[in-house]
Amino acid sequence: MQHTGFHQDDIVELLDTNDVHAIGAVFAAAHPADIADTLESLTPANRPLVWAQIPDKLKGEVLSELSEGVFKDLATEIDQKQLVDSIKSLDVDDIADLVNDLPEETYEDVLVAIDSDIRDSLGEVLSFPENSAGGLMDLDATAVRDNITLDVVLRFLRLKNELPAQTDSIYLVNRNQRLTGILPIDKLITSPAEDLAGKHIIDNPVIFNSLDHEEDVAKAFADYDLVSAPVVDENNRLIGRITIDDVVDVIREQAEHDIMAAAGLKNEADIFAPVTKTSRNRTLWLGINLITALLGSWVIGIFEGSIQELVALAVLMPIVASMGGNAGTQTLTVVIRGMSMGTISGSNVRNVLIKESLVGVLNGLLWAAVTAIIAAIWFQNLHLGLVIACAMLVNLIMGAIAGVLIPTLLEKVNIDPALAGGVALTTVTDVVGYFSVLGLATLLLL
Amino acid sequence: MQHTGFHQDDIVELLDTNDVHAIGAVFAAAHPADIADTLESLTPANRPLVWAQIPDKLKGEVLSELSEGVFKDLATEIDQKQLVDSIKSLDVDDIADLVNDLPEETYEDVLVAIDSDIRDSLGEVLSFPENSAGGLMDLDATAVRDNITLDVVLRFLRLKNELPAQTDSIYLVNRNQRLTGILPIDKLITSPAEDLAGKHIIDNPVIFNSLDHEEDVAKAFADYDLVSAPVVDENNRLIGRITIDDVVDVIREQAEHDIMAAAGLKNEADIFAPVTKTSRNRTLWLGINLITALLGSWVIGIFEGSIQELVALAVLMPIVASMGGNAGTQTLTVVIRGMSMGTISGSNVRNVLIKESLVGVLNGLLWAAVTAIIAAIWFQNLHLGLVIACAMLVNLIMGAIAGVLIPTLLEKVNIDPALAGGVALTTVTDVVGYFSVLGLATLLLL
Repeated sequence: MQHTGFHQDDIVELLDTNDVHAIGAVFAAAHPADIADTLESLTPANRPLVWAQIPDKLKGEVLSELSEGVFKDLATEIDQKQLVDSIKSLDVDDIADLVNDLPEETYEDVLVAIDSDIRDSLGEVLSFPENSAGGLMDLDATAVRDNITLDVVLRFLRLKNELPAQTDSIYLVNRNQRLTGILPIDKLITSPAEDLAGKHIIDNPVIFNSLDHEEDVAKAFADYDLVSAPVVDENNRLIGRITIDDVVDVIREQAEHDIMAAAGLKNEADIFAPVTKTSRNRTLWLGINLITALLGSWVIGIFEGSIQELVALAVLMPIVASMGGNAGTQTLTVVIRGMSMGTISGSNVRNVLIKESLVGVLNGLLWAAVTAIIAAIWFQNLHLGLVIACAMLVNLIMGAIAGVLIPTLLEKVNIDPALAGGVALTTVTDVVGYFSVLGLATLLLL
Repeated sequence: MQHTGFHQDDIVELLDTNDVHAIGAVFAAAHPADIADTLESLTPANRPLVWAQIPDKLKGEVLSELSEGVFKDLATEIDQKQLVDSIKSLDVDDIADLVNDLPEETYEDVLVAIDSDIRDSLGEVLSFPENSAGGLMDLDATAVRDNITLDVVLRFLRLKNELPAQTDSIYLVNRNQRLTGILPIDKLITSPAEDLAGKHIIDNPVIFNSLDHEEDVAKAFADYDLVSAPVVDENNRLIGRITIDDVVDVIREQAEHDIMAAAGLKNEADIFAPVTKTSRNRTLWLGINLITALLGSWVIGIFEGSIQELVALAVLMPIVASMGGNAGTQTLTVVIRGMSMGTISGSNVRNVLIKESLVGVLNGLLWAAVTAIIAAIWFQNLHLGLVIACAMLVNLIMGAIAGVLIPTLLEKVNIDPALAGGVALTTVTDVVGYFSVLGLATLLLL
C-alpha cells in the first residue's frame, strides 16, 4: 500500500526516549484513525501525554475515531477546556456520538460552546435511538429543488465549492422539503445539461425511515451496494443521509459484538481498562457459568455410588460431555449465522433440524465407535466401551437438536442467541452427557 | 425502509401452491441480492426450479451474489448452456470470482463463449491470489490524462454517457499509464472548469499494490473512509480499482470466518449441503477435540485411586475445569480481537499479560470462595472446600495466562488463533483444572 503513515512502535520508542515533540511531528502528517489506534494501544497512564502532542486541528477527529471505552477514560484525564474545543469543531453527528460519554459538567460546557443552530440540530439527532437510522445519519444531505435543470444543479454545486464526503447523489425535494427523487452524481455529469433533474432519478430507490434499525440499514447497504442513502421523517421530509463509512463501522461493531458476546464480554473495547473494572465486567458471566456447572455436578452427584464402584466412569464422562458440547456448538454457530443472514427462518427450521440431527447421527456413530474401542482397551471392559458409545451417540444427537432449538427459542423470547446460546447449549450437553454415561452404566453394568 | 422488495416466505408459499410463474413475476421487479438470499434459504431440491423462474437478465447477477457453497451446488444442477450465458454477461472481476467453482467442462465453455479481450483480462485477474488487492479489484477504473483541464474531463465523461458504480474519483495517468493523481468527482464538479485536473488531486492518497492482502485493504478502507481506491502494478501503472461494496463483502466474510472458525467450521455457507458432506466437513474438528478430551481423561486416570477414596472429587472437578475454560476464553477473545485490531502487538503483550493475570486473581478469589462454601456444605468437608478453592484460583490464573500466550504463540507460527485458540485453551484449562483438584486433594486430603 502506498500511503504515508507511521508505525505504532515508533511512538512507543519515542515515548521511551521521552522525545514527546518528535511524536507531535509524526502526528502532524498522520491520519486521525491511525493516531486513535495508537492511543488505544497505549496504557492509560501514557495516553494523556501522547494526546497533548496531537495537533489541535486533528484532536476532534481523533476523538471520534476512539472506541467508547478509551474515549470515556481519556475524557476524564485531559484538560476539559481543550476537550470542549476539540469536540466543538466536529460535525453535529460526530458530536452526538461523543457527548453522552462525557463527564456531566463537560457535556454542559459543550452545549454552551456550540452555536445555537448546531445545538438545535444536536437535539434533533440525540432524539433518535443510537441504533436507529436517525441516530446513524449525517445532517449534511445535499438537496436541490426537483423542478430545475441539471445545469442549474451544477451551478449550485459549484457555488458550494465543495461537497460533503461520500456524496454519490443529490436529493431532490419539493417546496415542502419532501423527498421526490435521488439524482446520482454520475447522471448529473454525463447527462445533457438542459435536462430536468427529475428525468434522471433512480428507479426504486432505497430510502430509510428515521426509526429503521441499524442492522436493517447495514444489510440494505451491503445487499444493494449503496454509498449513501437518504433518511426521511414520517412525513417523507428529508432529514439526513446515511453514508457507507458509518455503515462499515456498524458492520464491524456487529461482528465484534457477536464474537465478544459468545464469551460473555461487553464494553471491553479498552484492553487496558482498570483491573477492577474489567473483573467486574466479566464476573457475572463466570457466576452464570458456575450455576450451570453446578447443575452438571448435581447430575454426577446422583450417581456417586456408581462412580465408587467403577471409577473409569469418572475418567470417561468428561469426553462424552465435551464431544456433545463441541458438535452442538458447530450446529449452534451455523444456525445463529443462518438466522442473522436471513437464510434460516420459521419456514425451514424443521428442515434444518432434520439435517443437523442426521449429521449428529453420522458423526455420533463414527466417534462413538472410536471412543468405545479406546475405552474398552484402556479399561479392559467391553461393556464399558459399549455404554460410552451409546452415551456419546445420544449426546451428539442431543447437541444437534439443542443447537437448532436453543437459538430459535431464544430469538422468540428476544434474548440474543449470540450471548446466551453457547452457555445454554453446553449446559444441555453437559447434563445429558453425564446423565447418559452414568445412567446407562448404572442400568447396564452395575 | 422504503424499497420495493419481497418476502422469502412469499416464494415458499408460491412453491407450495406450485405457482412457479408467479415467482417469475415477483423476481422481475426484485434485486439480485434478494433473489440470491431466497435461493440460499431453499432446500437444494427446490433451487433449480426457482432458478428457472429468474428473468434471464438477472441470472448472472444472482449467481455473483450466491455464497460459494450454494453456487457450486446449483452450478451442477442447472442447464449448463444457460449457466454459461448468465456468467458471460457479467463483469470480468465477477466472472473471475465464479469460474473456479464451475465444473471443469463448463469452465472451458465460458472461456470459449467470452470475447478474446475479456479472456485476456480474465487471465490477468486470475493471475492474482484471490485474497489480494489484485484479486479484489475491478478493471473499470476511469482514467484520463493528467495534463488536461477539468472542462475536458467533464466533456470526456459526458461522452461515456455513464460511469461505473461507486465512482467517486477519476484517476490521472501520464502517457505511460502510470498513476499520477486521484481527482475526486466533487472537486471536478465544484472547481473552475478551466483549471488543470492535476491542480485538484488528493494529498497523500491511498494507492494499493496488486499483491496487498485484502485484510490490509479492508482496514485502510474502514480507517480512511474510502469509497474507491486505485490498484497499481510494480511499475506504478494503473491496473484497476477497488470499490467499497467489495470491501464490505470482505469485512463480512472475515467476521464470519472468525465466528465459524471458533467452532472448527469452514465452507459451511450452504445450510442445506448434503448430510454426508457436512458430516465430513465437521468430523476432523471433533476428532481433534476427542484427542484433547482424552488428554484430560488421562490426567483423571492418574488419580483413579484418589477418586475412589473421595468420590466428591469426581463431582466437583468439572466445575474447576469449566470455570478456568470460561475465564480463559474471555481473555482469549479480548486478545485475539486486540491483535486483529492492531491494539495488541509485540510491544505491549507484557502489559496485557499482567493485567489479565490480575483479573484472573480477582475473579479467581471471588468464585473460589463461593465454590468452597458450596462444596464444604454439600459434602460436609471444610478441607475439601479449601482444596477446590485453591484449584479454582490456580486454574483461573492459568486460564488468563494461556488466554494471552496461546494466541501470541499461534500467530508467531502462523496458525490462525481464531481457529485453534479455543481448543488449545480449553485443553490447558481442562488438564490444569483436573490436575490441580486431584493433585491437591491427593497431597492434602488423603
